[in-house]
Amino acid sequence: MEILDGKLVAKNIIEEVKTEVANLKEKTGKVPGLTVVIVGEDPASQVYVSSKDKLANKVGIKSNLEILSENVSEAKLIEKIEELNRDTDVNGILVQLPLPAKFDTWKILSKLSPEKDVDCFLPESVGNIILNRAKIFPCTPSGIVKILDNYKIDIQGKNVIVLGRSFIVGKPIAAMLTNRSATVTICHSKTKDLKGHLKNADIIIAAIGIPGFIIDDMVKDGVILVDVGINRLDKKEEVLDMCSEKQIKLFDKKGYAITGDIHKTAFKKSSFYTPVPGGIGKMTVAVLMENTVHLFKEQNR
Amino acid sequence: MEILDGKLVAKNIIEEVKTEVANLKEKTGKVPGLTVVIVGEDPASQVYVSSKDKLANKVGIKSNLEILSENVSEAKLIEKIEELNRDTDVNGILVQLPLPAKFDTWKILSKLSPEKDVDCFLPESVGNIILNRAKIFPCTPSGIVKILDNYKIDIQGKNVIVLGRSFIVGKPIAAMLTNRSATVTICHSKTKDLKGHLKNADIIIAAIGIPGFIIDDMVKDGVILVDVGINRLDKKEEVLDMCSEKQIKLFDKKGYAITGDIHKTAFKKSSFYTPVPGGIGKMTVAVLMENTVHLFKEQNR
Repeated sequence: MEILDGKLVAKNIIEEVKTEVANLKEKTGKVPGLTVVIVGEDPASQVYVSSKDKLANKVGIKSNLEILSENVSEAKLIEKIEELNRDTDVNGILVQLPLPAKFDTWKILSKLSPEKDVDCFLPESVGNIILNRAKIFPCTPSGIVKILDNYKIDIQGKNVIVLGRSFIVGKPIAAMLTNRSATVTICHSKTKDLKGHLKNADIIIAAIGIPGFIIDDMVKDGVILVDVGINRLDKKEEVLDMCSEKQIKLFDKKGYAITGDIHKTAFKKSSFYTPVPGGIGKMTVAVLMENTVHLFKEQNR
Repeated sequence: MEILDGKLVAKNIIEEVKTEVANLKEKTGKVPGLTVVIVGEDPASQVYVSSKDKLANKVGIKSNLEILSENVSEAKLIEKIEELNRDTDVNGILVQLPLPAKFDTWKILSKLSPEKDVDCFLPESVGNIILNRAKIFPCTPSGIVKILDNYKIDIQGKNVIVLGRSFIVGKPIAAMLTNRSATVTICHSKTKDLKGHLKNADIIIAAIGIPGFIIDDMVKDGVILVDVGINRLDKKEEVLDMCSEKQIKLFDKKGYAITGDIHKTAFKKSSFYTPVPGGIGKMTVAVLMENTVHLFKEQNR
């Protein structure tokens, strides 16, 4: 089993982005701008948002956080988005999900200018992915493809199981790999004989948010495992069962550990796997930076 | 093996549409309008277009054919589409594909007003299907779902193989059935061990345009077969091998016969199947009428 090192591949992407931002600044006198809109105080969202902000600053992207109170009205939130749509210094807008339950998420997202949809969540962006006409892709699926490409893993004709059918990961990655000539099956909570499907897979992409769900006897020898799950464990026996040595040590210090949707016993049967942490999560934020630069270039042609 | 009778189900839809158009006319003084734009003289396209025109007239929809010469310029074609976008008597616009090779199909389609995209081919329409937020669906995939529903065929949890990954049939039907909780695999020319995939399928949807491609030993007993192919055969030995008795008789009269992508030997192992002709083709035009009425109602709210 060989690690698909998200940290390393992401680092290379980040270096490239940094160089490109510097070049663009020299040529145009401007830098790409990314604004993250966050409503309310969901602690997980706060962590993600601050890591995006930090990375943007590191690569020279002008990062801006718009933190709105959970009590903000729909009208005010929409007004903010429209203001950002008009702001030529803002090239990419990301509305951090989930929004508080009182909001109609799709109504809010639909106010985003499609040219600034850095997450590729709008219907038009999703449609372009399916139609194989997209120029940028949603961050996590794009990160998956980039890490597989980086390790020269051939996708064409491979049996791929995508576990999970969210519009953020499952559906777009399935479309992207179908367009790359994989044979893709989306499995989910209603799938019968999931084990049969998994056993037949050359590549498994797990995005369901259930810690250690995929275990060794569900996969074939030599499978390639891509783990999108980021799950927090607080119970020592679970950490001992599912986590790497390093995470077990971290647990002893911090009182929690992180694990994915794939159990370490399954990794042992794989030819390649993405660890959690240090796998797809790292790729996701790196791609966000790349997407922002792409939108900047489109808007400044 | 029981026939999924597209002729019959389509007839019921058409009757409903007819009644609804009459009611709408009484209420609003207007009738839905459908315009088909056709460029050049592709004979197959001419046949499809004239059948759409006939059916529209039959149900009381105001049908309009815009027949443009193959020599029309891109600018003129776009001008025509923009004129139709503005025409409030036209609720649905359909650009008959394929366009002559000199045109950039996606550039032309992108000029269509999304509200009048009766075929659901635009990125925004496709995205809404994936995101499970669509109100109308592309005609052929929608026809497939409606015929399965009509015969109360349970989709949830079923293993579905979609053979073919076009944006007109394969990709949207895969998304629609995934949203209905089937476990869907899209297979195509690069798929390895296609037979293994097909043998495992509860439902097979064939949309590749290869006459009689799926034969008996590729499917399991009791499979449900949906045949989207419409292939014309001119050789007697092929007609005898693949076609129904009725088509064989027609061949003796006309010199050609029609068959789908699924061989009659496979139909014999199925629990249900859609014949060709008289299956999905009939459904497709019926759904086009339904979609037109839906767009009329949206535009006249």
